[in-house]
Amino acid sequence: MADTAPTTAVPEQSKSALKKAEKAAKMAAEKSAKAAKQAKVVVGQGKKTDDIIGITAKKEEDFPTWYQEVVLKAEMIEYYNEISGFFIMRPASMYIWNVIRKWFQEKIEGLGVEETSFPMFLSAKSLEKEKDHVEGFAPELAWVTKAGDKDLEVPVAVRPTSEAVMYPYYAKWIRSHRDLPFRLNQWNSVVRWEAKQTTPFLRAREFMWQEGHTAHLTEKLAGEEVLEILEFYAGVYEQLLAVPVVRGKKTENEKFAGGYYTTTVEGYIPSNGRGIQGATSHCLGQNFSKMFDITVEDPAEQGKHIHVWQNSWGLSTRVIGVMVMIHGDDKGLVLPPRIAKLQVIVIPLGITAKTSDEVKEKHAAKVEQLAADLKKAGVRSDVDTREGYTPPWKFNDWELKGVPLRVEFGPKDMEKDVISYARRDTGEKGTIPIADIATKIPELLETIQQDMYNKADAAYKAHRIQVTEWEKVVPALDAKNVVLIPFCLEPQCEEKIKDTTKSKDEQGNERMGMKSLCIPFEQPEGLVAGETKCLNPTCGKNAESWVQFGRSY
Amino acid sequence: MADTAPTTAVPEQSKSALKKAEKAAKMAAEKSAKAAKQAKVVVGQGKKTDDIIGITAKKEEDFPTWYQEVVLKAEMIEYYNEISGFFIMRPASMYIWNVIRKWFQEKIEGLGVEETSFPMFLSAKSLEKEKDHVEGFAPELAWVTKAGDKDLEVPVAVRPTSEAVMYPYYAKWIRSHRDLPFRLNQWNSVVRWEAKQTTPFLRAREFMWQEGHTAHLTEKLAGEEVLEILEFYAGVYEQLLAVPVVRGKKTENEKFAGGYYTTTVEGYIPSNGRGIQGATSHCLGQNFSKMFDITVEDPAEQGKHIHVWQNSWGLSTRVIGVMVMIHGDDKGLVLPPRIAKLQVIVIPLGITAKTSDEVKEKHAAKVEQLAADLKKAGVRSDVDTREGYTPPWKFNDWELKGVPLRVEFGPKDMEKDVISYARRDTGEKGTIPIADIATKIPELLETIQQDMYNKADAAYKAHRIQVTEWEKVVPALDAKNVVLIPFCLEPQCEEKIKDTTKSKDEQGNERMGMKSLCIPFEQPEGLVAGETKCLNPTCGKNAESWVQFGRSY
Repeated sequence: MADTAPTTAVPEQSKSALKKAEKAAKMAAEKSAKAAKQAKVVVGQGKKTDDIIGITAKKEEDFPTWYQEVVLKAEMIEYYNEISGFFIMRPASMYIWNVIRKWFQEKIEGLGVEETSFPMFLSAKSLEKEKDHVEGFAPELAWVTKAGDKDLEVPVAVRPTSEAVMYPYYAKWIRSHRDLPFRLNQWNSVVRWEAKQTTPFLRAREFMWQEGHTAHLTEKLAGEEVLEILEFYAGVYEQLLAVPVVRGKKTENEKFAGGYYTTTVEGYIPSNGRGIQGATSHCLGQNFSKMFDITVEDPAEQGKHIHVWQNSWGLSTRVIGVMVMIHGDDKGLVLPPRIAKLQVIVIPLGITAKTSDEVKEKHAAKVEQLAADLKKAGVRSDVDTREGYTPPWKFNDWELKGVPLRVEFGPKDMEKDVISYARRDTGEKGTIPIADIATKIPELLETIQQDMYNKADAAYKAHRIQVTEWEKVVPALDAKNVVLIPFCLEPQCEEKIKDTTKSKDEQGNERMGMKSLCIPFEQPEGLVAGETKCLNPTCGKNAESWVQFGRSY
Repeated sequence: MADTAPTTAVPEQSKSALKKAEKAAKMAAEKSAKAAKQAKVVVGQGKKTDDIIGITAKKEEDFPTWYQEVVLKAEMIEYYNEISGFFIMRPASMYIWNVIRKWFQEKIEGLGVEETSFPMFLSAKSLEKEKDHVEGFAPELAWVTKAGDKDLEVPVAVRPTSEAVMYPYYAKWIRSHRDLPFRLNQWNSVVRWEAKQTTPFLRAREFMWQEGHTAHLTEKLAGEEVLEILEFYAGVYEQLLAVPVVRGKKTENEKFAGGYYTTTVEGYIPSNGRGIQGATSHCLGQNFSKMFDITVEDPAEQGKHIHVWQNSWGLSTRVIGVMVMIHGDDKGLVLPPRIAKLQVIVIPLGITAKTSDEVKEKHAAKVEQLAADLKKAGVRSDVDTREGYTPPWKFNDWELKGVPLRVEFGPKDMEKDVISYARRDTGEKGTIPIADIATKIPELLETIQQDMYNKADAAYKAHRIQVTEWEKVVPALDAKNVVLIPFCLEPQCEEKIKDTTKSKDEQGNERMGMKSLCIPFEQPEGLVAGETKCLNPTCGKNAESWVQFGRSY
């Protein structure tokens, strides 16, 4: 089963590797905290320090450790040590989530979606109405059984998603076909007490998301909205996070528990060649409306009642993790300018004990002017005036935190009436005449945004390979690709493929098999109906579609 | 104990009355749902209906039932029947909460407060660090003891507030006095599984709020922020909700569990003469920083460590309930224009079967122009073009929902080049030349906002009575006043006062005693230090302050 948020199983065999990686990351984090504690003392004594707590793992060598170091050290996340599997979202990541929230909220308001807030608890009775749905979520439910020192008469579960919380009220509120489309969304957090390994942003026992729940008169109208929302999800990735995605439909095995069909945007992590589900927009069909008795009178036929067609769709903070994985590098986080809280950091430099008072004063005035000009140009910027730190220390610090553009300004720049800059994404350096910064810096930020997308897009395109020979599948996966193969769409065949595409790495550790990621809407050519066979050699059925498979999160 | 959200006890004796009222409201709601179901059928058959499901209880006669009818029928709230004590916030109330959220968020961003999101669960170990705090909240904790079908090794509680969730991390993150002030805020919901009677918005087992948690170097700096935040809270009430409040400090009995002192804004409900706590801003002193070991090195003395001074402050969706109680009337909700999603509803009328096509067309064009002009003027407006409903039905419907201004436009208005209007708050009617609407309607909306505030303020002022004779206290309460009395500030004396100010109503039901609401910052004259005695005749101590007491929520 699939759903609107992280639920992909991590195969048993890779758990130990992940645990090892997590342990290493935690040790690194503790080490850095210790170092920071020492640094604190040093700073406290008024001495200078150049100790920067950088990323110690290499992205290409130890990706899981690298990732966990980045999200910790760039201060996006803190592990919640009190209860395992939970994370604290710090201001650096909340800012990004709020940019996304605002953008998406405007889009859905444009569709007429209204905001609501339902309770966080669910009664077992509501949940049990849809059989596949309860089976899908029951193993992950957190049960409240006590209040104060008293046992509850009937335990309640923390919502893992809100279909069963909301739909009894849809039955009450939707009175006529005139009430359709009926569309509500809520921004909240949900709890799925997974036994699987957790990873910051990608898989947590509690995560923030939005969940939209809508009702329509016909399958066609519901289906249109499913795709409109999916396009907004693609927009979050492509336009805000500079992350390319493939739009498609989930196979039966991977669709939402209890739904009719699921559409998805699928991403790709070049560092390990894994696919990752980006966000999902589900058509629930009439399954839930039949169970919860949500009907309207048919406008075309008096007295006839129709069960409404429903959708649900969700986008979670997982998006932030995908962005970090794709853009980050060995120096730390790399943020696309559109979602960066700080787009430009100005670092004044070159002022020493020998600098004349006149130059000092002029320099300070110019820096102030520069900051004012950037703010006026709508650039989110700040000046690093911290004392006791050298420019290289500051460079490292802002690189770790992913600020897209560093501006340096010293007496030499002042003489030439320019600023010097360094791009975070490419390291490229250059100068811009001070007179032009109000136009050139916003342009440069947009260029960075576009270049980051293009780079990620090129990597995805280069590693999304059409395979028409079964023998080439596993080598393609081992070479960090996702594959497009002719596939019969049968659930059992899909299970079989998952089993038969495991392999071993150099150390003899088993690599997970591939699973279906999506049936891309954009189908390549070359599949002949009634002729092309499913690529699984033990299947023998006709291929129905090109399907994207891969090892995945 | 008091805290940042509803916890005022409802005395046992008034519970049965409340239960009766709630039952009546639920019956009314069911009745209206049934009527609506019938109306649905009628509408479904294409027939017209003039049945409006209005408020049946009178505000002055049966205030609790009236309130519950209003929040239900104006579609602000739905009872969550699955689990008692929980409510659904519908779009009509979420809109208001979001206006408040945006306004307050901008204010605190201006102070440098950043956003965060901590897990919703709390370990017992963290909670137990502060003794008064755990005692205050333990009886209301919801305990998760099971995940899926497995018992948790260590049960976890849903946060009732986040001091104990957050402060272990403050100890980690605050490394130097340079990190101060350290200020985080989160928008979330918390759970307090109260045994007390719940009321929509005012007291619920789960409620939405913001909780700010900050750390400062000195008591003075912490204290300054406490008041800045309190002033923002007053602004939410006074500037957005048109609700007057009194600023003050809580007595020891009523302060936050584990805190140092609590400041508050206190409101007043004219219909029943009760005081109501609006929102609270606490200085926690060093109590929590000592327990959680949050220290920095003293910038003035090398090697000396200081425990930081902490604040926490919260504003909940309770504000919406207070606004409804104060402004609503027998026709339903009355919304202040600044927080109304729909400020103006335009109702075209006077077009009949006899109207000439020429007039019809011109009228339709004018209505369209009118709507466009209002939108352009920044007025949140809509046109009610629903067919099958008479103008009076529409009037009632929008009055029930509290839209501040109704604009009517018929052929007669068209002849005179005016629109007709009716104010929701006063019922006052008038006309405005069409040419002037872009300026006159926004002005009128501001007038309505101001008049609503003034009316509520006059009611508060008239019922906030200075009392200097003990015998006059209970009669004053029975006449729906809150009182200002000279008071010794002793906790035991306060308990005694609560006991000795009970009275009986005409039916012989016991009325609750009064409790202290706040020590107003603005103290009346007439209290002579060392001379004026505490008003409680059995006390005999000197009065320290004028204190506002009242029956309260």
